Amino acid sequence: MNPFANIVKPTLLLDEAAAMMNIHRMVGKARQQQIRFRPHFKTHQSAEIGEWFRQVGVTAITTSSIDMAQYFADHGWDDITIAFPANLRQSAQLADLVGRVRLGLLIENREAAQHLEGTLPTAVDAWIKIDAGAGRTGLSWSDAAAISDMATEVQSMKKLRLRGLLTHAGHTYSAASPEEVCRRYHESIDHMQAARAVLQRAGYPPVELSVGDTPGCTLCDDLGAVDEIRPGNFIFNDSQQVALGVCSAADIAVALACPVVAKHADRSEIIVYGGAIHLSKDYLMLGETRAYGLVALAEGNRWGPPLEGGYVRGLSQEHGMIRLAQPDFDRVQIGDLVLVLPAHSCLTVTLMRTYRTLDGREITTFNV
Amino acid sequence: MNPFANIVKPTLLLDEAAAMMNIHRMVGKARQQQIRFRPHFKTHQSAEIGEWFRQVGVTAITTSSIDMAQYFADHGWDDITIAFPANLRQSAQLADLVGRVRLGLLIENREAAQHLEGTLPTAVDAWIKIDAGAGRTGLSWSDAAAISDMATEVQSMKKLRLRGLLTHAGHTYSAASPEEVCRRYHESIDHMQAARAVLQRAGYPPVELSVGDTPGCTLCDDLGAVDEIRPGNFIFNDSQQVALGVCSAADIAVALACPVVAKHADRSEIIVYGGAIHLSKDYLMLGETRAYGLVALAEGNRWGPPLEGGYVRGLSQEHGMIRLAQPDFDRVQIGDLVLVLPAHSCLTVTLMRTYRTLDGREITTFNV
Repeated sequence: MNPFANIVKPTLLLDEAAAMMNIHRMVGKARQQQIRFRPHFKTHQSAEIGEWFRQVGVTAITTSSIDMAQYFADHGWDDITIAFPANLRQSAQLADLVGRVRLGLLIENREAAQHLEGTLPTAVDAWIKIDAGAGRTGLSWSDAAAISDMATEVQSMKKLRLRGLLTHAGHTYSAASPEEVCRRYHESIDHMQAARAVLQRAGYPPVELSVGDTPGCTLCDDLGAVDEIRPGNFIFNDSQQVALGVCSAADIAVALACPVVAKHADRSEIIVYGGAIHLSKDYLMLGETRAYGLVALAEGNRWGPPLEGGYVRGLSQEHGMIRLAQPDFDRVQIGDLVLVLPAHSCLTVTLMRTYRTLDGREITTFNV
Repeated sequence: MNPFANIVKPTLLLDEAAAMMNIHRMVGKARQQQIRFRPHFKTHQSAEIGEWFRQVGVTAITTSSIDMAQYFADHGWDDITIAFPANLRQSAQLADLVGRVRLGLLIENREAAQHLEGTLPTAVDAWIKIDAGAGRTGLSWSDAAAISDMATEVQSMKKLRLRGLLTHAGHTYSAASPEEVCRRYHESIDHMQAARAVLQRAGYPPVELSVGDTPGCTLCDDLGAVDEIRPGNFIFNDSQQVALGVCSAADIAVALACPVVAKHADRSEIIVYGGAIHLSKDYLMLGETRAYGLVALAEGNRWGPPLEGGYVRGLSQEHGMIRLAQPDFDRVQIGDLVLVLPAHSCLTVTLMRTYRTLDGREITTFNV
């Protein structure tokens, strides 16, 4: 069966074999280094795809929201870390979850610790959120007093079990080279170890370290002395990962099939049905040029390699403006499909909410 | 009732009174200038909100997709232009629609015209899509031969009634000032008139002109010699429109309520639950600074004016990083709500899919 035959509008194609390969690679790497693998499910967001992880022995997962944790709890996952600072306003939902799963929460302030102490029916694992260099959120790895105070606060709570220190080294995404990705990854682990040493010196029982972004976990041979990794994007990868040197385009497991609706020979550009409401407005840099995705064509039952010189030049709500090299421009016809390899697969999945596999099966996400 | 009391996670608030005021203003302007008002419903995407337009006499609408046209047809709208180049692959859906509503389609190539001729059961209104300067898609306004050929092609088809020339002057969004918005708007109308003159000289019967972007239709007192306008964003406006000088912040009718989950005094930044999957990654420029939204606080039963010096500095999947001036930083507490005035309301609506009015009522969109 030709997977492209009956596609009439923007459709998120999923190459299961490529995704499975990506899963196997990361599972194998973690296992070999005896590090717990707690994949972030915010990328695929799907119970069915979650089962692929279960089949290879994964039992612990990460989600980015309480709603997503509830969805996966409903689908039999019972060890879930919500990798987002605890949200006081959702304590009723948290109270429900804590009775059903082993729950890990991120704590980085006294307000959250005290609120949880007052509202949770039983104890959760508390991970102190550390900023190991990314500059998003968490206690600075170098602020020994804040980390120590936070640990004391957590230890004083009956509903919080101090489990460890957790970070997301998101600044690997802005690295200039694969080497810099690894430098930043390892530096973040050094910072985490320094933070843990603060607690050790202060006499706290040993705590775990949880880290893990896709660039670092993919590119660095040695994952370092950590207890668990939590990458998410690696299952699908995307054009940003390719631009960063994290993977090759063949490792991208999702592509948005877009009907061609217009051609502009004067600027060697095609217009596709497929815009910001399908792909998101995230982008990558190709040298000095902003690209909202790379572009491929159908080849047999999959999509082919990215077209040399092809990229998504701009997006409006439903339109994609795609620059193509002359020979590709000439062979693409109105009514054809082109495949956009998303800049950022997590956001594209959030928008599309449903996958179609290459054999035409539908897979839904928790957002449907 | 306090509209903020029971909000626990990112929630799209809708100020109905502000939206209604925006509708009245645009309806009045079009009526006064005797121009048909065919509002673009891609911004609100909601049958219930559509009724507000019907109450003030609107009978013709614009959508950005066939799916959206079907949704509004199901809700009683019977004069719909799909302002997107006709997509050959959806001819079955178009064939269904054409039996139910007066349908307008955008044509800019022979392939679409011929395909529609072969697949539509009855005739539709054909609008030749013109690029009047925006550089997205359409036949160039200055390419007399292409416009004339396209009109000939359309005229030769039984299923296409040549209704007019249509453009979207989207380059008003990149204008440097309100004056430049109006210059570009009027220039695009001059271009449309030049394109129409080509057809008049070639002996075609008179055709209509359809234009209309929110910046131009809001800022320019004289809408020009056109037959219809199709703005959409004006109903809610957003921070991009404020930055462009199109409206004041008081004219923004939607805001994303976001729980505060962390504070970082060293950089006067708060972290909110509310990220790229709620707001989209669209942004505005505040001088040299990229901002993913402006920020306000609750004041009584509405949100207040944007905080001076406050803006969304960055977004990841679920996190918003918000810079605040020192006094605002000091008064915002963990667990509070802040209100983000979206950079681009159309994309935020697409992501959120449901509104909550200030009196706590839920309004859904076609994406739910």
